This record gives sequence, C-alpha cells and structure tokens, in this order.
Amino acid sequence: MSLVDHLRGELDESSVLIGEDMAAWSRDWTGQYSWTPLCVARPRSTAEVAAVLRAAHAERVPVVTVSGHTGLAGGTSGDGAVMLSLDRMTAIEEIRAPARLAVVEAGVILSDLHAAAAAEGLSFPMTFGAKGSARIGGILATNAGGSNVLRYGNTRDLVLGLEAVLADGRVVDLMSELHKNNTGYDLRHLLIGSEGTLGVITRAVLKLVPKPRAFATAMVATETLSGALEVLNRLRDVTGGAVEAFEFMSRFYIQQYAAMHPEARPVLDGEYDVTILVELGATAPRDAEPGPDGQVPIAAYLEEVLGEMLEEGAVLDAAVAQSDAQREAMWALREAAAEVSLSHVPLVNNDISVPLDKVETFLERAGARLAEIDPEAQPVVVSHLGDGNVHYPVWIGDAGHKDAVMEAVEDVVLGLGGSFSAEHGIGLAKRASMARRKDAVALDMMRAIKTALDPEGILNPGKLLP
Amino acid sequence: MSLVDHLRGELDESSVLIGEDMAAWSRDWTGQYSWTPLCVARPRSTAEVAAVLRAAHAERVPVVTVSGHTGLAGGTSGDGAVMLSLDRMTAIEEIRAPARLAVVEAGVILSDLHAAAAAEGLSFPMTFGAKGSARIGGILATNAGGSNVLRYGNTRDLVLGLEAVLADGRVVDLMSELHKNNTGYDLRHLLIGSEGTLGVITRAVLKLVPKPRAFATAMVATETLSGALEVLNRLRDVTGGAVEAFEFMSRFYIQQYAAMHPEARPVLDGEYDVTILVELGATAPRDAEPGPDGQVPIAAYLEEVLGEMLEEGAVLDAAVAQSDAQREAMWALREAAAEVSLSHVPLVNNDISVPLDKVETFLERAGARLAEIDPEAQPVVVSHLGDGNVHYPVWIGDAGHKDAVMEAVEDVVLGLGGSFSAEHGIGLAKRASMARRKDAVALDMMRAIKTALDPEGILNPGKLLP
Repeated sequence: MSLVDHLRGELDESSVLIGEDMAAWSRDWTGQYSWTPLCVARPRSTAEVAAVLRAAHAERVPVVTVSGHTGLAGGTSGDGAVMLSLDRMTAIEEIRAPARLAVVEAGVILSDLHAAAAAEGLSFPMTFGAKGSARIGGILATNAGGSNVLRYGNTRDLVLGLEAVLADGRVVDLMSELHKNNTGYDLRHLLIGSEGTLGVITRAVLKLVPKPRAFATAMVATETLSGALEVLNRLRDVTGGAVEAFEFMSRFYIQQYAAMHPEARPVLDGEYDVTILVELGATAPRDAEPGPDGQVPIAAYLEEVLGEMLEEGAVLDAAVAQSDAQREAMWALREAAAEVSLSHVPLVNNDISVPLDKVETFLERAGARLAEIDPEAQPVVVSHLGDGNVHYPVWIGDAGHKDAVMEAVEDVVLGLGGSFSAEHGIGLAKRASMARRKDAVALDMMRAIKTALDPEGILNPGKLLP
Repeated sequence: MSLVDHLRGELDESSVLIGEDMAAWSRDWTGQYSWTPLCVARPRSTAEVAAVLRAAHAERVPVVTVSGHTGLAGGTSGDGAVMLSLDRMTAIEEIRAPARLAVVEAGVILSDLHAAAAAEGLSFPMTFGAKGSARIGGILATNAGGSNVLRYGNTRDLVLGLEAVLADGRVVDLMSELHKNNTGYDLRHLLIGSEGTLGVITRAVLKLVPKPRAFATAMVATETLSGALEVLNRLRDVTGGAVEAFEFMSRFYIQQYAAMHPEARPVLDGEYDVTILVELGATAPRDAEPGPDGQVPIAAYLEEVLGEMLEEGAVLDAAVAQSDAQREAMWALREAAAEVSLSHVPLVNNDISVPLDKVETFLERAGARLAEIDPEAQPVVVSHLGDGNVHYPVWIGDAGHKDAVMEAVEDVVLGLGGSFSAEHGIGLAKRASMARRKDAVALDMMRAIKTALDPEGILNPGKLLP
C-alpha cells in the first residue's frame, strides 16, 4: 500500500490531498520557493499527527510541517514530502483569566488568539504584520519576534508548556502551566525555534498578560538614530518601562509605501531620515484614568517628553494619535514592511540584529559595502529598533550580486557582535550563512541533537542545519 | 602518568588538591551527602577548564563541577571524580550600563554581582538566601529561582549568552549580547538547568534591569491563603505589576525561627496561620518621588491597599517597613528558611510547585496524607507564593517513613498539575522521582541528548537522569 493510501486509511480521504489540491502547499508566499510534495495531510488531532508521523517514519519519507505559510526563510519547502498542515487544529481550548494563560492547539491563528484573550481583558503580547495568517505552531517553531519583544520578550518567553510529536510518532507531554519547574533538560526551549526539525508542536500553554488599560501612540521624526534612542531612553525612564514598541522606518521605506498606497494620508508632513513609531501601554489605573482635560496620563507623558525634545531640537516632528483610527493608520504603515520589501526582484532578504547602540554603525557600514558591490542596491530598512533588530532587505540591480550582498551584510553584522538571523530563522535561506557564521562547536552540538532525536532525518530535512 | 599528575602539569600543583585538602569538596553543606573525590581541580580560565576536561575525558574519569556549594539536591557528589571547582574564576569582566548587561565568569558570587550592578544603578534581579555563597555557574546550571521570579523570571530568563566547555574539552561560544537571535537550536537554554551533565558553563552574558528607585515592604497576616492571593492581586492591579516578591511563611516556620533567634524582635505581634512578606519596587520616578509628607507613592499604594483590606477584615494585621533596618529584619526572617528547615533530622526535603490558586489545596491534601503516614510529621512551609512554589520540607519522627512521605507529597502535587521539583532541581535527591513522575518520552529524549553530547558519560554521572 502506498503511503498516501495508508494515510487516507489513518485519517480519511478528504484529509489527505494530492495533485492540484496541493497547490497552496507547494509554494512559498514570497514567491521565492516552490516544490512538489508527495501529499498534504491535514490531521484533526494530536493522535492523527502521530499517525502521520508513524507512517512516514516507517517508510523514511520526509515530513514538513506547515502552519500559517507566513515564513520568510523558505522553511516549509519539501519536494516529495508529506506536508503536515495544522490548519484544522484550531481549538482555543481554554483561556483561564485568573491564571493568565491560554491552552491552544497549534493551528490557532494569532489574531484569533488576540481576540479571545482581549475578551477576557488579557493580551497575548506577540504581534507582527502576518498576525491574520500566522498560526501558533509556526510561531513557536520559529520563535517569532515582532513588535512587542521590547516589553514582553520573544515567543519562547511566552510559553509555559507544550506538547509535541516526535519523528517516530511518540507524543511528548510538556504541557506545564507552571512558572517554576526544574525537572530535567528544558525540552520546551529546545523544540521552540527548531523549525520543525526535531518534532511537531501540536499544543501549547501560553502566558497572557493584562491588556494595557490605555495606549499612547506617536509617529516621531529625528535627525539620527542616536537621537531616536534618546527618545526611547527618556520614555522608558519616565514611564518605568511602559514602552511596548519602538519601530524605525527609513525615508526610502516610507516613500515606497506612499507610492504603493496613494490613498494613505501621510502621518507626518515632511520626509525624514528617521521616522519612529512608538507605543506606550499603561498597565496601572493611575496611568490610564482620564484627567480633567480628558487626557489619560500615559498620553500626557508621551506628549510631555516629545514636547520637550521638540523644543530642544532633538525631535524634528511628532504626531500623537488622537483616535483609534489614527493609531491604526500608524501601524498600517509599519506593518506593510513585508509587502513593500518583497515588491521588487532581485532581492536579498536580511533580518539581522546588533547591540542596540550599534544599529547606526551597522547601517553606515552596510550601506557603504552595498554601494561597492551593486550601485543600484537599495536597502528597504524597517527595524524593531528597541531590540537592535533590523529588517534589511536589499533591492539589487543584478541578481548575480546576491551572494556577495548577503556575505557583505553578514561581515558587517558579525563585526559588530550581531546575529545574521534575528527573528526570521534559518530555513533554506540562511543555511549557507549557518555554515559560514555559526560557532563550529555549536553546529556539531546541533547535529548531534538532531541525530539523537530524529535518527532517520525525516523531519523537515535540509532546513536549519547546513 | 596518573590523571592527578597530568592535571598538575596542565594547571599547576597548587591548583590540584588531594587528600585532606579536598575536605570542603567532599561533602554537601546540608550534611546529607558525603563522598571521596579523586582530586579537586581549581582552574583559573576557560582554557584550564578545557584542559581538565580533555584529560579526564581521555581517561573516562567523571568530572563534577562545583560552584558555590549551596545546592539542596545532592547535585555535586562525586566518588572518585575530579571535582572541578570554579571558585577562582571570579571576574566581573564588564558591566555595560547603557546595554543593561553584565559579562561575568562562572565563579562570581551572586552578592558580588548585586553590588557591582548596584554601583551602576542597575540590578541583577535574581536573589535567594544563599546569595552570599552561590556562584553564577551553579545558578545557571540549576536555573535557580528565588524571591523575584514573580516579576523578573527564573535564571534562564536573565541570560543572554554563555560559554561552556563540553565533555571532551571543546569550547562552545554562545556569548551573545542580543535580545533576538534565531540561529539554530537554543543550546543556551539546553545547558541552563542541565546540572553539569551536558557541559561546564564558564562565562555568561546576563541581563540587568533598572534598580528600583524605591521599595515598599510589608509583613501581612491573613486568615487564609486565598485571602493572601487577594492581597497579591489587588497590589498587582493597583501598581501595574510592581510586586517584586510575595513570600508566604507558615505559623510553624515563624515559631521555629523565633526559637532559633531569640534576639530577633517579632515583626507582627500576634501569631497567624498565614504571614506574607510583600515587596513592591518602583521603577518610574512618579512612584518614587517623596510627596509633601515625605512618603513615596509606592509606599502609599501599599498602605492604602493594606489599610482598605484591614478595614474589610481581609487582612488581620500588617506592618510596613519604615526603614532599611526594618526591611532587612523582614527579609532575615524569610531568608532563614534553609537554616530553619535543615535544623532537624530526619527530614524529607520537597520543593514543589502547583498552579497559584492550588497552593491551599496542596497544603490541605499533603497535610492530611502526612498525618496518616507519620503522626509526628511536621512540614516547615515557606513559599514563593506568587509563583505557586512551595518549599515543603517535612520533619518526620521515623526515618523509615522518608520514601512514603516523598511519594505522598508527589502524589498530591501531580494530582494538581504541579512539579515535584520547582527550583531546587533533581541532583541525587529527586532522581527516583524523575523515574516515577516524569513523562517517559521526555526522559527518553533527555537520555538521547545526554548520550549525544557526552557519549562517555563523564559529566556529573548519576545525577538528574534516572
């Protein structure tokens, strides 16, 4: 019996797709990768995931787990593989407000979890542009970052427990709800960020945080990135750490957004080298209760700091959102980053991080190197500046320059103590970089762990490890 | 050449101890474990640590890493082993205030790091009773918890990067200073909490946080634990999350402390079932600037909430510290927990966690089970209540009841979705519990990882894994 027939027996016919029905699982949404799977399996439960893995493992057929199709590193390609799609495992099993946690299946879409948590006055503080498509399993498997890491940490910091299925179909139960649990190696953190190469995450216990009682959001222009960091530091200081997001957009990015969205009214009138989207979140009542003038204190702090810095000349222009609609317009500008940057080919995608105070140096040095390699090279810079994380896709004139551009960017990053993949992960796109840049002993350790946990090498082969 | 001679050649004679010089490395400070090492090696650098491991690995001699000798689980015993002591690697290499990080060697004593960070207006927010002896390497190797986890997380949440030496002497460099770095499996989290069985942590990059501008500390008595949790929730709510510590002490514990410390004046006049040490930390200037009456707002919030709850009858008594000396006296009472609980034999030590709202049920059920097993059994309960973490050492009448008591406590814990070792780890003490209680697939994964990274099994053999 063929593996497809076997899987149809284990699940049912409608849960195992072949031929043209596989179209959505045969290419990357960025358009950079396409492949021909063996089939697509769409299990409805952990038991069905285990059945798929047992069957594939017995025949040594690769299994590539697919979540929301929003990855940027080619991590879900799989010629001849069983595409294991979690899109039917979408139960939000429990939101327990007093314990501030959610128990979810891996296929839950991020924005659905946002809504469910908000209904209980809570927040799952992980957010990024693809929130309407990205699913929890993929978010965990790639340790997603996003715009609120500054205050709440990366995905791994928001996970109390998880359940996963190993290569051979065994289920490991790590569904802890505890904040302290020192009983052996932290397998949870090993699975988080392993990009589907060590196991398939099927369920998770996630931390929730109190939903901020009020937000204050502004678009701010400064002369330089150092000037922007001064804004960040003053706001953190005044508010005692209430800065939720601090996002830098370059002049070129804003120009391109405007060209693609002529209907959008610019938030600031002028054009600036450095535009920052900053958002504060008030967690204490005293910061969120409107004063006699109707203004909430958290917004007053923001206006006060920006006002002072405008007077000093340290801030060139600033607009504080006066309504939800204005806040949303600011975020729409920021969250179009993938749409804008991927609108050009040839493209070299980079997602790097450096220590916070070295972002400016990175941009200067990388810009100079680009100009030498390809005179048409144009970086489309958007950055989670508060984390030192820079999205640095480069539009180039000649596709032949791709490798040289990537290596040049990495040279600059590594020279500054940075990372060649901050939040997008490795997948296929950065595998050569792993070989070039990662500590050799660390790579040996990773290979040893991979072999120990997936000796047949069926889980997402060819990804992450060079 | 013997291994001892070989090591003396690699380090120097004074760095390799034998015979009576090994006394301090031949027993556990709790008095529960003693052993006879082969020798004690006291390297001065990562290179010397690597030399020790290479030599021991070649001869397949066990290596037990020792840090501050403050463990509670027998994790550093080693008959015939090379005791690898990190007590000479005490450099605080760098405190970088703008980046809020410290780069340290593994032998740094926790309270020395506290002092160095405080000198820069920062804090390393990991603290517990043994802070004057515990060293960073051991704190990382056991993923220590302590009293501020409520606000700042466990040790692993405070580590940006580390360096470690593997069983065969290879050095792995994971000394990242970055807040986002998705380049392969998270080996940092795998090594943290692995109790010296996967590698020897030699250096680390640690996160620092702004030192609170002011503290407000109180001792509070309530009728029940539910009543105490109501205090916690109201304070978290009013302050927007500024509760740094929330520590429960039982009536019996406080009585025993008073008997051992007749010189100490009681903080509260009466005796209560539930006494809580609560501490708030103000990070924003507006919470820390004294008002016209000289009081800082953070203290005013505390007094206001406690005052309201006293009036409602929900709080039975409360004392807010009016000076540093009063604050220190409150903490002295709390931090004598190990001293008090270990003052009696026979003893069954337990360090468990359950979901926050189940601590009361745990105490009721466990107390009932103890009474059945040993009529003299008396738990000495101290708890990081804000984390659901209960230190539950049991004084028993008959040493023959040890195993039955431990299993009974575990039964109750597991029945409530808890952990049989919250922060003290496994070591030797909880190895049987690991065999009984840990998910079998998780244990298989751990064994596979151990074999992959330390195939000769020389690193801290016989610990952690059953």
